[in-house]
Amino acid sequence: MIAISGQSKKIAEVGEFGLIKGISNLIRASKANASAIELGPGDDAALFRTRPGHTATMTTDTLIEGVHFRHDWSKAESIGIKAMAVNASDMAGMGARPRVAVVSLGLKGTETDRWVFEFYRGALKVAERHGFAVAGGDIVSSPKATVVSVTIYGELSPRKPPLRRDAAQPGDVIAVTGPLGLSAAGARVLADDSLKLEGSPRMLDAHRRPEPRVLQGLLLRYAGVRCAMDLSDGLLGDLPKICDASEVYALLREDQLPVPHAVRWGFPDWFDLALRGGEDFELLFTCPPENLVLVEMLFRRWGCPPPIQIGEIQEPHERRAQIRMTHTDRRTFDVEPGAWDHFGAK
Amino acid sequence: MIAISGQSKKIAEVGEFGLIKGISNLIRASKANASAIELGPGDDAALFRTRPGHTATMTTDTLIEGVHFRHDWSKAESIGIKAMAVNASDMAGMGARPRVAVVSLGLKGTETDRWVFEFYRGALKVAERHGFAVAGGDIVSSPKATVVSVTIYGELSPRKPPLRRDAAQPGDVIAVTGPLGLSAAGARVLADDSLKLEGSPRMLDAHRRPEPRVLQGLLLRYAGVRCAMDLSDGLLGDLPKICDASEVYALLREDQLPVPHAVRWGFPDWFDLALRGGEDFELLFTCPPENLVLVEMLFRRWGCPPPIQIGEIQEPHERRAQIRMTHTDRRTFDVEPGAWDHFGAK
Repeated sequence: MIAISGQSKKIAEVGEFGLIKGISNLIRASKANASAIELGPGDDAALFRTRPGHTATMTTDTLIEGVHFRHDWSKAESIGIKAMAVNASDMAGMGARPRVAVVSLGLKGTETDRWVFEFYRGALKVAERHGFAVAGGDIVSSPKATVVSVTIYGELSPRKPPLRRDAAQPGDVIAVTGPLGLSAAGARVLADDSLKLEGSPRMLDAHRRPEPRVLQGLLLRYAGVRCAMDLSDGLLGDLPKICDASEVYALLREDQLPVPHAVRWGFPDWFDLALRGGEDFELLFTCPPENLVLVEMLFRRWGCPPPIQIGEIQEPHERRAQIRMTHTDRRTFDVEPGAWDHFGAK
Repeated sequence: MIAISGQSKKIAEVGEFGLIKGISNLIRASKANASAIELGPGDDAALFRTRPGHTATMTTDTLIEGVHFRHDWSKAESIGIKAMAVNASDMAGMGARPRVAVVSLGLKGTETDRWVFEFYRGALKVAERHGFAVAGGDIVSSPKATVVSVTIYGELSPRKPPLRRDAAQPGDVIAVTGPLGLSAAGARVLADDSLKLEGSPRMLDAHRRPEPRVLQGLLLRYAGVRCAMDLSDGLLGDLPKICDASEVYALLREDQLPVPHAVRWGFPDWFDLALRGGEDFELLFTCPPENLVLVEMLFRRWGCPPPIQIGEIQEPHERRAQIRMTHTDRRTFDVEPGAWDHFGAK
């Protein structure tokens, strides 16, 4: 028996991160958490051993109508693409190769069969592009909202360690695989009909059809990188997770942040939008400077856009903030960490 | 590109089974359906190869508030038990050993943290009892209904073939691992406050805390049984799936159906309730008579209740119905196949 210490607080008060911590404690205390588990809750995906020396991983994510997508904003195919992409992105964040996906659909009953088939077409597109299979799943009735739940099983080759959140070292450079804020800007464009921006199509695409960085994840591991995660809660939502897990601090360089001009110029609150808005699905990683050279070489050889160095990992310091940023005028300021909490709690 | 032939019919018209068929066709036509997949959609769970000679399986199921559970009918712990049990039951239906589960929770935000922790306690209980691990999962916001999605990864030892739906042979006996109709009766008791039946506690338990037949699934394979599935849509909902997949007919013996007296006496419509109500989560299997003797022996040795023979598999016959039943007075009558379709279509 496991003691439950919950205070019967409303989840909106506890917050997403408090909940996950409580669940992790329960799981760790349980006898069910057999020796099979190499890495439990708290990273992009769980790792477990399938046989001596071989590691597998599983990741699951649910999209809810009205929260993660709206039928009037996204076509079925895009929703299928996104549902599969966010899970493949978690695989990328571990440096794993996705192998097989299953899909669970909760349908209101007012969707058409065509909607379901277009959804699957989108899901299968992502699977085809990244070389994994869709093995089916189930369909249930969900009268109040369409619900899409995807789980992917993946494997890690035994040669190199997985990409973890707790492996950042002082002196590491901090880098990302692509631009930040496009998806959040896309959501803003969808929410406000009057917005007509130059970069809108790219923003909408980033929001509706994110591209998981599966190949980049594999290349990072190959290059000896040990610390990475995928950016789903925005740079300032996710970087603190690496800092917490690795017990390090971070210094970012504002002028190097890859926030596209269209986002900076289109939105007065671009800073929060781009760094806390989330759903970038780029990889955030840290490594010694010499590894970054190898990463750049491998990315170039495989046709990936070059990684962008955005700062460095530092020793924790009691009189400093966990995340600081250097402005173009060389002033350094503290940055409030945090994503937009999905339940409204901070 | 995959051609989509959907007629844009409402799902309520197409029905659950029509949809699954369409999805299966899409998946089969896709290049994403790599050679990894041994058995795609249409059975209890998909099978895929992890390495030469080794087969893994993955199954996913979603429970929706208001459809599969109600907060005023079931405590969080029971919901956790049920969510894990229905997936473990799909593993049992393949004869697989569950290894690792992941959980995706969609929360309204009005649940308490205690609710979440009690839910996990229930889920972990099932995992502990059946020897698999819970590796975490994710939490998302789902304002309109609590949503619980579970996926389990399992493995099949290479020595024996998996339990499939398409392996029934004329001459096989048809058997189940336990009583039918208790769970559906339990749902009826919950829906009607005025019902006070002798067997209510057992019915409620069967509905709230189903026991997956994981050990029995392993023993069936060990005994050389090749055809089985778990009963989630009721005997008359699920037996036709075996008959369709195996291209055989079935003759049931009414006097051997293990419908408890409390169900027969408590409900005037006990026949449909017990045989179409669903959620029994017993295993339905067919095998040559000589294998049944071995199954009985193994079940006894491992402390499982004995299997119950309920009929036999026959050759298809153009002037007969797919499912027939012999009454105690030896009259044989045709039985309308079919579960209660979750979208209201037949």
